[in-house]
Amino acid sequence: MHDEDLLARIAARLGPRAIVTGADKQPYETGARHGGGQAHAVVLPASATELAWVVQELVAAGVKLLAQGAGTGLVAAAVPADDGQAWIVSTQRLRDVIDIDPVNRSATVAAGYRLSDLNRAAAEHGLMFPIDLGADPSIGGMVATNTGGARLVRYGGVRENLLDVQAVLAEPAGRVVGGSRGLRKNNTGLSWPQLLCGTFGAFGFISRATLKLHAVQRQSATALVAVRSTAAAVQLLCEFEHEFGEMVSAFEGISADAMDAVRQHGLVRPPFAETPAYAVLLEISSAIPRSGGVDLEALLVDWLAARMENGIVEDAVAEKSARLWRIRHSISEAVQALGRLVAFDLSVPRSRFASFLERARTLVKELVPEARVCDFGHLGDGGVHLNIVVPADLSPDAVVGLRDEIYELTVTGFGGSFSAEHGLGPYNQRWYLRFAEPAVRDWACVLHGHFDPRGLLGRVRLD
Amino acid sequence: MHDEDLLARIAARLGPRAIVTGADKQPYETGARHGGGQAHAVVLPASATELAWVVQELVAAGVKLLAQGAGTGLVAAAVPADDGQAWIVSTQRLRDVIDIDPVNRSATVAAGYRLSDLNRAAAEHGLMFPIDLGADPSIGGMVATNTGGARLVRYGGVRENLLDVQAVLAEPAGRVVGGSRGLRKNNTGLSWPQLLCGTFGAFGFISRATLKLHAVQRQSATALVAVRSTAAAVQLLCEFEHEFGEMVSAFEGISADAMDAVRQHGLVRPPFAETPAYAVLLEISSAIPRSGGVDLEALLVDWLAARMENGIVEDAVAEKSARLWRIRHSISEAVQALGRLVAFDLSVPRSRFASFLERARTLVKELVPEARVCDFGHLGDGGVHLNIVVPADLSPDAVVGLRDEIYELTVTGFGGSFSAEHGLGPYNQRWYLRFAEPAVRDWACVLHGHFDPRGLLGRVRLD
Repeated sequence: MHDEDLLARIAARLGPRAIVTGADKQPYETGARHGGGQAHAVVLPASATELAWVVQELVAAGVKLLAQGAGTGLVAAAVPADDGQAWIVSTQRLRDVIDIDPVNRSATVAAGYRLSDLNRAAAEHGLMFPIDLGADPSIGGMVATNTGGARLVRYGGVRENLLDVQAVLAEPAGRVVGGSRGLRKNNTGLSWPQLLCGTFGAFGFISRATLKLHAVQRQSATALVAVRSTAAAVQLLCEFEHEFGEMVSAFEGISADAMDAVRQHGLVRPPFAETPAYAVLLEISSAIPRSGGVDLEALLVDWLAARMENGIVEDAVAEKSARLWRIRHSISEAVQALGRLVAFDLSVPRSRFASFLERARTLVKELVPEARVCDFGHLGDGGVHLNIVVPADLSPDAVVGLRDEIYELTVTGFGGSFSAEHGLGPYNQRWYLRFAEPAVRDWACVLHGHFDPRGLLGRVRLD
Repeated sequence: MHDEDLLARIAARLGPRAIVTGADKQPYETGARHGGGQAHAVVLPASATELAWVVQELVAAGVKLLAQGAGTGLVAAAVPADDGQAWIVSTQRLRDVIDIDPVNRSATVAAGYRLSDLNRAAAEHGLMFPIDLGADPSIGGMVATNTGGARLVRYGGVRENLLDVQAVLAEPAGRVVGGSRGLRKNNTGLSWPQLLCGTFGAFGFISRATLKLHAVQRQSATALVAVRSTAAAVQLLCEFEHEFGEMVSAFEGISADAMDAVRQHGLVRPPFAETPAYAVLLEISSAIPRSGGVDLEALLVDWLAARMENGIVEDAVAEKSARLWRIRHSISEAVQALGRLVAFDLSVPRSRFASFLERARTLVKELVPEARVCDFGHLGDGGVHLNIVVPADLSPDAVVGLRDEIYELTVTGFGGSFSAEHGLGPYNQRWYLRFAEPAVRDWACVLHGHFDPRGLLGRVRLD
């Protein structure tokens, strides 16, 4: 069938709003951080049934398909290639169900709803979906990416909060699988949701997800804490978790250079007169309100006071949570304003965090002496966004060399991950091929052969 | 190679303690609850290296292999068939590593260690592995089964606490895959640990696991609460979670017949003068000690008092946690003492729990009028052990009929699970074949073909 016929057929069945072509495609062709390409067309089904029909038609026509959510991903997994071959299947209109079950503490949500939509609906029942991050991704994209964020230390990521996934397969084309039963215990073999989670649409199109909800927090206490080193920050993390256990909800690390970037370019002024060698944003929170006999602010202030006395904490500001979080959330943009950026999304075991960062900083200085390492991130999970400001004229080869060396140090040297939470896309596929275990690639190859024998789906190859 | 030669080769390489034959095999051939069979021999490797060599030898010889842990499983997944063909590969001596990383809050543990071993080692650092259950399973068995237990409502099951798995494959035979990096964030494609978790050794032999650890609880408050119905219990669950949020650590349901069984045969006397229509054992706990400004017992007592006033709670006993938990833990044996048992391990969405139980009780009475339904279980997760005492002379056909009807009601009628936490084995394989989604069985078939092309592994078929 000619493409024009196919477009006409889709428009006839799904309505004219379901097709975007020509110059209007442009917003769908541009990545949030990396990449921009060309799509043949954008198709926007408005229900799981429409999605199934679209996939059937497109696979029958033998065209390339690219699932796309809200476009907030950072590794270009949902950005089309330059060749203009792919048909983007966007979930932006796929909003046919958002069903909160307050007794089951779960939500069944169509792929196209945003995280903020879900949290608005859940809040009416005193509940929330606890993945916390700067962007406002689609639910389908969150499942495909296994989104983490700042409160993973308390709640886990999407993987730990995923009860069911419904998806549309490309083989057999248009087959709908999975469900939305929302069982917390169902120990009957292979976990289909876990296969779809974090595999970036390589095996099928996520149409809806059933997710665990948690109690809204009724009080929290937050502090920005100055320490003398990353090693001291890791020690403080252990003491913090030991003291506050289940109430710990964030522990974010901020390097001096990242804090200085905020001082220079951020919207909020950091509260310390002098930038500390390393800083930590820590938070405890509880569903029990202050009136219920637990005063988290008082507990946190006492704890910090004791740690200032024994010297591990050099300075601390415990104040309005929102203002401190704004400092944390403004780092990414503030660092970008410093100049040309080479950014990494890494993690290492927490026990190796301090020594890793020291080695990484030394390595960067050796490779690019003028570089400025503005690292920050989710120290509670061993995560670090190692964002490096490099000279504007650094050669592309030097950038690739820097990336190679940092990833090698992270993965081979420290048993870490080259993509802690952003996932896999064309942006980092090269390093997947370098670091993924051969046995796991074999397994992925078998699954690709099963779910996508003609190689039509997505831009990420796991084999 | 003749079997005798193979046995001699194994004994020569691993030592005489690594082989069990003859009458000594008997303890390895008997299930904890169901089944008893015949093994050709039992092999007990003492390290991952020995395990890899053993698997290589046995696969080369083309014999059937059956992985076995502590033998505490309840669905006979690790019990040999009657034909005496299988070689049991026991992990009981596979105890080559138990490594607690207190800074990373993780443990890397060889498959043969028991849950109690892990918790003893973790306790030295103020940490614990939070899966709580009556038995003391091996770590390898827990991963293969995706063990749940009574505190899943707070911490999740094994799946949510699994960072890494190392396993030995049968194809290529003896290949060791996976690792023990212990990363909390590693978003780089397919999750190998999640494939091995809950698939009962169908795809490989688990040799070690890296698990998340949590802070030991420094205080808890427990109460046994009488309510007028299961519907009231579910409402109380919602109010309990709303009030105590992250501090909720158990919410267990106990029917009147289960409570009466404890009264009759249990070691601990239930504290109520009259057996309530339904009872709940609820618990909150915290890593924050009472001296830290939070008094959980006081909070719980106040909350229960308010609920007695508004009538949802009819009676409540808040006392020594250990005694109340002994009542809960003695139910299973007390119910067994009542007579012949047909037991179910079910779950349904919590929002359908009360109506499901009502329908199930009616159905049982219709099918077997003399039956006594002694249900109890993890209401917080929608789990229920529907244990039914039936006449001693009930025909095998009537038992199968009862099982068929209850499973049909659970899965088809209420969107529930026919195996909430016990997993899959010969005991319930029949119902897997009936209820598993065809697409998921296709996927399992592809993986079986890849990991076990000659069909040598285990007793569970997922295809």
